[in-house]
Amino acid sequence: MLEYPNKIRKNYHKQVNYSNRGMDLEAIIEEANVYYRDQDIAYIYKKPTPIGVVKVVYQNKERRIKDAFYKTPSTLDFNGIYKGKYIEFDAKVTTNKTAFPLGNIHEHQLRHMKNIERHGGLTFLIVKINEEFYLLPSNVIFDFINQNTRKSIPYQYIKQYGYLLKYNYNKGLDYISGINYWIGGLYSEEKN
Amino acid sequence: MLEYPNKIRKNYHKQVNYSNRGMDLEAIIEEANVYYRDQDIAYIYKKPTPIGVVKVVYQNKERRIKDAFYKTPSTLDFNGIYKGKYIEFDAKVTTNKTAFPLGNIHEHQLRHMKNIERHGGLTFLIVKINEEFYLLPSNVIFDFINQNTRKSIPYQYIKQYGYLLKYNYNKGLDYISGINYWIGGLYSEEKN
Repeated sequence: MLEYPNKIRKNYHKQVNYSNRGMDLEAIIEEANVYYRDQDIAYIYKKPTPIGVVKVVYQNKERRIKDAFYKTPSTLDFNGIYKGKYIEFDAKVTTNKTAFPLGNIHEHQLRHMKNIERHGGLTFLIVKINEEFYLLPSNVIFDFINQNTRKSIPYQYIKQYGYLLKYNYNKGLDYISGINYWIGGLYSEEKN
Repeated sequence: MLEYPNKIRKNYHKQVNYSNRGMDLEAIIEEANVYYRDQDIAYIYKKPTPIGVVKVVYQNKERRIKDAFYKTPSTLDFNGIYKGKYIEFDAKVTTNKTAFPLGNIHEHQLRHMKNIERHGGLTFLIVKINEEFYLLPSNVIFDFINQNTRKSIPYQYIKQYGYLLKYNYNKGLDYISGINYWIGGLYSEEKN
């Protein structure tokens, strides 16, 4: 029952349909999380989905859930530590080709991001749009919201201010590189 | 369905039996977490318990879990951010009056604490022993393990090197004060 890194990785490879591999955003982020842990680079986990348990029975001396419902998370799906910094982010997929609709982010998630940002954490979204993956830092999102009345972030804006992430067969979706560009301040040098 | 702080607090007060209030360690930590968020001091949450879902049905257009089991967590129960720092800890209760048995901490949890510590996070246990609550920093735990062959940490050692935490009716178990003593270096001044 213990989840050692190697075991997680093994199970992971079992669960993922090889042909769809690049398609499942959460799976390739989890693949990166396992790689980062194995390499002692970062310790970032997907939080379990919160549930409300209604009925539990005992089977073979173990508790077994027989009725439960999914709750709406008030935070983001992934969190952990990298270079001493608190990291929290969410994975979002849009089939819209021209823009990322802000309706994909709940009000309370945005409020949470603002809180984390104010307290010195690094918080962002990983957005899949047009079969590409972008790390979109909180400040980029809030800048857009403050300066625009539009309800979606144009693809061109994401291309310009986000960080394009690469998928690697062995390492998963390498979002730490995106963080490095962001906190390394290479952002302004490269893009301005 | 959205969990706003006020709502959490309200539900929380409903769930807790007043007379047993000081007794349920997780509940008084959660009470503190809500207080810290309300006061914009820290953003720390209890992670949902990981489950393995076996069967899901659709009821009234919502997914409903009809069979699931509890998984063993490989990390600690609470994490979040305080003063820009990554925080992760677990709550442990022992009825043993003379010592805290190390068997209460899983091997993989200790390994995880070591990783978090090495990467600059603050990780600790909150231990309830003899109706008192102590914050026991990771370095204190690892010092004990490295210097002793005993399988349990004596109560006197916890009293000496841990931080006694106070429970406040409105604020819950004030573990942030313990963190402040720890990171403020008051530890060595006061105790040595």
